[in-house]
Amino acid sequence: MSEYQELHRRFDRHYLLRSSADLLEWDAQAMMPEGGGDLRAAQLGTLRVLAHEAISAPDLPDLLAAAEAAPPAGAWERANLAAMRRAWVHAAAVPADLVEARARVTSGCELAWRTARREDDFASLLPQLEEVVNLTRRVGEAKAAVMGLSVYDALADEYEPGAREAALVPLFARLERELPPLVDAIVARQASAPPVPALVGPFAVDRQAALGRHLAERMGFDFARGRLDVSVHPFCGGAAEDVRMTTRYDEGDFLSSVLGVVHETGHALYEMGLPRAWARQPVGHVPGMGLHESQSLLMEMQAARTPELLGYLAVVASAHLGVALQRESLERHALKVARSLVRVDADEATYPLHVIVRFSLERALVAGDLAVRDLPGAFRDGMERVVGVRPPTDREGCLQDVHWPSGAFGYFPSYTLGAIAAAQLFAAALVAHPAIPAELAEGDFTSLRRFAHEHVHQHGARYDTNGVLERATGRGLDADVLLAHLRRRYLG
Amino acid sequence: MSEYQELHRRFDRHYLLRSSADLLEWDAQAMMPEGGGDLRAAQLGTLRVLAHEAISAPDLPDLLAAAEAAPPAGAWERANLAAMRRAWVHAAAVPADLVEARARVTSGCELAWRTARREDDFASLLPQLEEVVNLTRRVGEAKAAVMGLSVYDALADEYEPGAREAALVPLFARLERELPPLVDAIVARQASAPPVPALVGPFAVDRQAALGRHLAERMGFDFARGRLDVSVHPFCGGAAEDVRMTTRYDEGDFLSSVLGVVHETGHALYEMGLPRAWARQPVGHVPGMGLHESQSLLMEMQAARTPELLGYLAVVASAHLGVALQRESLERHALKVARSLVRVDADEATYPLHVIVRFSLERALVAGDLAVRDLPGAFRDGMERVVGVRPPTDREGCLQDVHWPSGAFGYFPSYTLGAIAAAQLFAAALVAHPAIPAELAEGDFTSLRRFAHEHVHQHGARYDTNGVLERATGRGLDADVLLAHLRRRYLG
Repeated sequence: MSEYQELHRRFDRHYLLRSSADLLEWDAQAMMPEGGGDLRAAQLGTLRVLAHEAISAPDLPDLLAAAEAAPPAGAWERANLAAMRRAWVHAAAVPADLVEARARVTSGCELAWRTARREDDFASLLPQLEEVVNLTRRVGEAKAAVMGLSVYDALADEYEPGAREAALVPLFARLERELPPLVDAIVARQASAPPVPALVGPFAVDRQAALGRHLAERMGFDFARGRLDVSVHPFCGGAAEDVRMTTRYDEGDFLSSVLGVVHETGHALYEMGLPRAWARQPVGHVPGMGLHESQSLLMEMQAARTPELLGYLAVVASAHLGVALQRESLERHALKVARSLVRVDADEATYPLHVIVRFSLERALVAGDLAVRDLPGAFRDGMERVVGVRPPTDREGCLQDVHWPSGAFGYFPSYTLGAIAAAQLFAAALVAHPAIPAELAEGDFTSLRRFAHEHVHQHGARYDTNGVLERATGRGLDADVLLAHLRRRYLG
Repeated sequence: MSEYQELHRRFDRHYLLRSSADLLEWDAQAMMPEGGGDLRAAQLGTLRVLAHEAISAPDLPDLLAAAEAAPPAGAWERANLAAMRRAWVHAAAVPADLVEARARVTSGCELAWRTARREDDFASLLPQLEEVVNLTRRVGEAKAAVMGLSVYDALADEYEPGAREAALVPLFARLERELPPLVDAIVARQASAPPVPALVGPFAVDRQAALGRHLAERMGFDFARGRLDVSVHPFCGGAAEDVRMTTRYDEGDFLSSVLGVVHETGHALYEMGLPRAWARQPVGHVPGMGLHESQSLLMEMQAARTPELLGYLAVVASAHLGVALQRESLERHALKVARSLVRVDADEATYPLHVIVRFSLERALVAGDLAVRDLPGAFRDGMERVVGVRPPTDREGCLQDVHWPSGAFGYFPSYTLGAIAAAQLFAAALVAHPAIPAELAEGDFTSLRRFAHEHVHQHGARYDTNGVLERATGRGLDADVLLAHLRRRYLG
């Protein structure tokens, strides 16, 4: 067996352990009763350590070096070898006991967050969140030392390979400068329009669920290879051949749940479209979370908010919910721009402002410049300064997101990188397939999905995010395209 | 750290891996889409091997010998040490590659069984089932060599420690002799009664589910520590603090689903009542599957079929299902005895006959005296000879049970051992708590649950099955009590 083949075997085993843990995490969010929390935290700790050990054994450096000295012939194999090295750098930098402690503590903290959020009780979360921040900082320090990066960059690199503060800071500074006047102009314009009639509920949960399922199927979600369930914080997990996406329902507001399903289905189509032959190898996965997010936003923000798709939605939503909905009314609701409290419900124009607040706070937390106990106040101040609204509670403030309790620091920028990439990809798709708007008017996603599959999904991690974008759109990540899209859709 | 403490650590890790695999198996039965089958089989193979390795490492014999030479002080610790040795004997006898192959193959076969059963297509299952039988035989041979037992005994000992063909054969021979005339007498007596009015459906699945949930709660099932879902083959899995039980619904027949929930709740109460401090150690689990089954049958067959509980059921079922049900009618249906095709729907008088057919066939399969391809015919012949009915299809024949496709050979006797133990335990409970019938008439399971907890649940595996029965009822396993119960309830 060649060194490369031996590495292939190790990473296969790593994937089987990691995907087992992912399934247990999906279960913890979507299925598990409260009593299972302690056991689940211990199970995840064990599985994460074993997955870590599989690709950080002492002989890995020699295997990698030998394989790189005599690289395999195929382009996929060579890209896989590069992805293996990247994964090894992240894994080997962190000692096993730290991996286990972090998995255990974040699993417990995430569970505590559920209760703390429901009861608006930050104090109850504080001790565990402090522990999570401390352990995450130690992980970041260990990686930073090996990778020659700042602690924050070392953490963010796990989600977004190549993402660096040096580039993110000016990008977000520009958005923080340009978006508020844009938002002001949109808000003023929308205020001058006649008031939007409310979408009168209640909309029964089972009917909303059937509507969401219908849309997911129209988009190409294969229910023989995935599920749609309910969780507090919607997400898309599982594996390519068994995708587990979740949503949440509000009887008073079907639009948010439906568009949430469209969002998660965008993620799911990416997973389902990854190269099957490489499903258990690093090159078979996504090159970064920003590109993953681009696929959800391509569907949710770019496609689903076109007049064409909203027209289709008005018809099928009316049929499923048993009410008479007009496209114009849906459009006014779906395109409403407002400075609001909750990130996941934010419109596309203010969403980056929510990210900016978090990007700034998580850097301060990781650096130790902000104590965890001071987070609630700092979060309110940040929201007031950047987004323009002050959360009256922590539930609507720093407790709204699962990311930090679950140990994900450095993840938030991916949402905005994804929004930019989505704008670029949709523009390119419209050029390549001019029939897309007419298809969307019929609820037909064929050409858009084909474009996404051809230019993004099927490549796995063979190219990095910028490489994918350059091949698909002719240029790397470019905030101009997002800003132009916003001006055109809302002011043009 | 003493040797015992080190063993404690190893078995803790073993439990975390095993319980992770158990959760993935629950998911495979209750949640997983079809597309996930291959990945799940590979995940389970990996986890089962790691769990196996945790307690079959080369230094285990030395650790066990040293711990036994200087045993820990507490009675629980000493019982745990004995349970560790038992687990080690079973684990170390089987090489790791065989463990992995068996886990992988049974997982795939179980999935294929789902389709084969639905489509009544034994031929599609044959290749995988042959592989399962071969691998199981090899496992049995490996254990038999170490344990000095027959292959069948070595396999059965995993489910029922101490169970031996030498005792099971005469027990089942006696039942095969005594039950048929008893069944004939019951059937004749019931035939002479006026015909039973049908329980007219359809009974909506969500109402049946609410009724099942109500009963489970009245029995003491804690939904903060467990779930109730749907699967093709109802079972009770998960862990003590996170019990996953399943049922299945038939719109035409609510009684079978409701009594199925009562059955699984009996299992669940046992799991939930096991000693918390020992949850991750061998002594904290059940001493054998027969005793586990005794707890489900104590509830389903002994308690739930008393006139008192059926009176309560008539009231709550009427309320939940929106129909007017009489106790007498429920009683006639719930106590109906008939030679029928499907084991899980069989009444308590004919049930052991179904077990006898399987006991005989699985011994022949394991011994190689019966080829897997000849199973369908042998199953029909066996059913006709012992139960008195001939399955017209394999769906109602050898495809009805998941046990063999999932690699469980030597499990079936536990059902009858459990039925005998349940009769003994209920008789003893009535003596200890004469108020039980009056309580059951109110849907109150307090005293019965207290008896079961005090005499069975809280002991974990500190005593073996006979030890538990002797302490609880004054005698070991005794088929007389079951036969007397049947005569009294149906003829007396």
